[in-house]
Amino acid sequence: MTVPRIDVVYRLHVAAGQAEHRARLLAVEQSIEMPPEAVDDRRVLDQVLARVERVEAQADGTSLARLQLAAETVGDDAGQLMNMLFGNCSLQPDVELADVELPDAMAQRFGGPNLGIDGLRRLTAAVGRPLTCTALKPIGSTVAQLAALCRTFARAGIDVIKDDHGWANQRSAPFPERVAACQRAVQDANSAFGSHTVYAPSLHGTHVQMRQQVEQARSLGIAVFLIAPMNCGVASLNALKREHPDVAFIAHPALAGAGRIAPPLLLGKLFRLFGADAVIFPNHGGRFTYSAACCQAIARHNRATWHGLRAALPVPAGGMSVERVAELKSEYGSDCMLLIGGSLLAAGDRLAERSRAFVAAVARREEVDA
Amino acid sequence: MTVPRIDVVYRLHVAAGQAEHRARLLAVEQSIEMPPEAVDDRRVLDQVLARVERVEAQADGTSLARLQLAAETVGDDAGQLMNMLFGNCSLQPDVELADVELPDAMAQRFGGPNLGIDGLRRLTAAVGRPLTCTALKPIGSTVAQLAALCRTFARAGIDVIKDDHGWANQRSAPFPERVAACQRAVQDANSAFGSHTVYAPSLHGTHVQMRQQVEQARSLGIAVFLIAPMNCGVASLNALKREHPDVAFIAHPALAGAGRIAPPLLLGKLFRLFGADAVIFPNHGGRFTYSAACCQAIARHNRATWHGLRAALPVPAGGMSVERVAELKSEYGSDCMLLIGGSLLAAGDRLAERSRAFVAAVARREEVDA
Repeated sequence: MTVPRIDVVYRLHVAAGQAEHRARLLAVEQSIEMPPEAVDDRRVLDQVLARVERVEAQADGTSLARLQLAAETVGDDAGQLMNMLFGNCSLQPDVELADVELPDAMAQRFGGPNLGIDGLRRLTAAVGRPLTCTALKPIGSTVAQLAALCRTFARAGIDVIKDDHGWANQRSAPFPERVAACQRAVQDANSAFGSHTVYAPSLHGTHVQMRQQVEQARSLGIAVFLIAPMNCGVASLNALKREHPDVAFIAHPALAGAGRIAPPLLLGKLFRLFGADAVIFPNHGGRFTYSAACCQAIARHNRATWHGLRAALPVPAGGMSVERVAELKSEYGSDCMLLIGGSLLAAGDRLAERSRAFVAAVARREEVDA
Repeated sequence: MTVPRIDVVYRLHVAAGQAEHRARLLAVEQSIEMPPEAVDDRRVLDQVLARVERVEAQADGTSLARLQLAAETVGDDAGQLMNMLFGNCSLQPDVELADVELPDAMAQRFGGPNLGIDGLRRLTAAVGRPLTCTALKPIGSTVAQLAALCRTFARAGIDVIKDDHGWANQRSAPFPERVAACQRAVQDANSAFGSHTVYAPSLHGTHVQMRQQVEQARSLGIAVFLIAPMNCGVASLNALKREHPDVAFIAHPALAGAGRIAPPLLLGKLFRLFGADAVIFPNHGGRFTYSAACCQAIARHNRATWHGLRAALPVPAGGMSVERVAELKSEYGSDCMLLIGGSLLAAGDRLAERSRAFVAAVARREEVDA
């Protein structure tokens, strides 16, 4: 009998002659976690113990180990998928999690984005161009200051105004007051100027708290949220997206680390799998160090045909500026969202003008279809 | 006016001449995340922007940057503390989070262990010696197989029998049936043999799901749980421990990574801060690569006098064996819990004998007080 299995690729930083042996130890570590010779249940050995499919030496001296994990060890629990993929071996520095492919049924259970690229375009009436996004900064601001920013950004026609990821429930602008005031400011601007801006507040705490935050915000008409899956646990994102199938989530990479889980896998595939409609990642040439190839792979995975899941919007970010819009459009095409935060705010008194310049640069036709 | 601040130490992997500048960028990244010159609110600059206290070149070519973060950016949200400490800079490979010191009031709000070492000793009637712990393996086993293991381990007098961290709600042994059967097996053995073994099931999923699991298990008399804070989110651990102040949590290091957050900080201090009564860590000389000094620092932080929080039990694990008990006792003293899993199960037919040998080796007087 064949059993559903998850294909996992690990990069092993060991001498080529050790790679086969290391892969077998890894298969034990990430499944039964005890000596196979001490297991007397035939079914466990046949169907639960991870298998080493093959080990391939690479030109850079590492090896790629292709393992198969039993799908039954995961069920439909997103946290448990992370646990089986990388729980223990996250503690073993000679192992990187490079790639994952899932059985179709498992991908359907996690379900991917609720709205995806098409849904986010419908919400914001943004067609044939990248979406524009900015962030409410700095933390420490008052509710009135943030609402004023919302008015300026919405009036300039920015599609998505998100909370900075540092916003939780701070006393300078507590979640309920902040969210109500920002949403009202955006709605007022939309009415006055015919814009379709959406405001996306930042979820924080546990699933219990986030559920309350989502319900509270939905009662105000909010339909998009910012969430940091590696901080709150990927299971919380997946649970929220199942509970609210008409809501979109922008995933933030806080705590997502720099490398031991390949960013194209984590930000490109897994966040989408668990329900991110848009995925923020640190673009090359900003304050972070991902390579151009890595960033392009993230964007490719976000949008690729994959198990029938909706496509997610890649969101290059982290030190972007209006001057880079043309380059970003040429690199990522129109199915992306461009996030410019601090660099807009640096315009000070000329924030409105700078925000309009951002919107205009993104809308400019000639550069759209690279 | 002085405002409450969090002292944070980051290790910077940059040239010494760049360290001051890098530290200032980091202070911005981990607080207001926008150019300070664009902030016109004096309060934000004075009280919210992180400060660089000093930067010290180290003999190994790195520098230690001592920053102060404003406590108001965190509030009482454990996930938000992680976010402010390491959210964005987790994506910057030249930065490691080395150490943290908190205001007393913040430590009190997180609250630390519910029961701590003393409480776990009371639960298990284990006095003057390390506690003993083993794990139910392999995943894929049936409920009957696991209950049989529980009987054998409890009869041998092992103090804590925990689910392997790979247990979630798999169909071979779903959580409700597994927990009921294992707890009954342990209680029956305790009645029959006068032992005080406790069974600790593995929590999985989100805070909502874990809350149900805890309530279900508590109705059966269960008072100790296994949880992986870096997988479910540290906020979930902290919320559960506040909701159930008479319950103990054993923290598992799954997904905790190998190094960018210093293990003595993460496993030694932060897990305890958020409510871990016992902290499993990969001991040196096993399947993992933490150094002896790193392991000893974890144990030291678990037990140190700190903000009046209860002490947590360090749990060296990961490939330990009965043969190493004397060495482990001499290294960690009696205030620890020794976890031997796979190596007991490898005894096969002689599991009961091997389990008794484990208990006897730990109880042996002459080696206790190193």
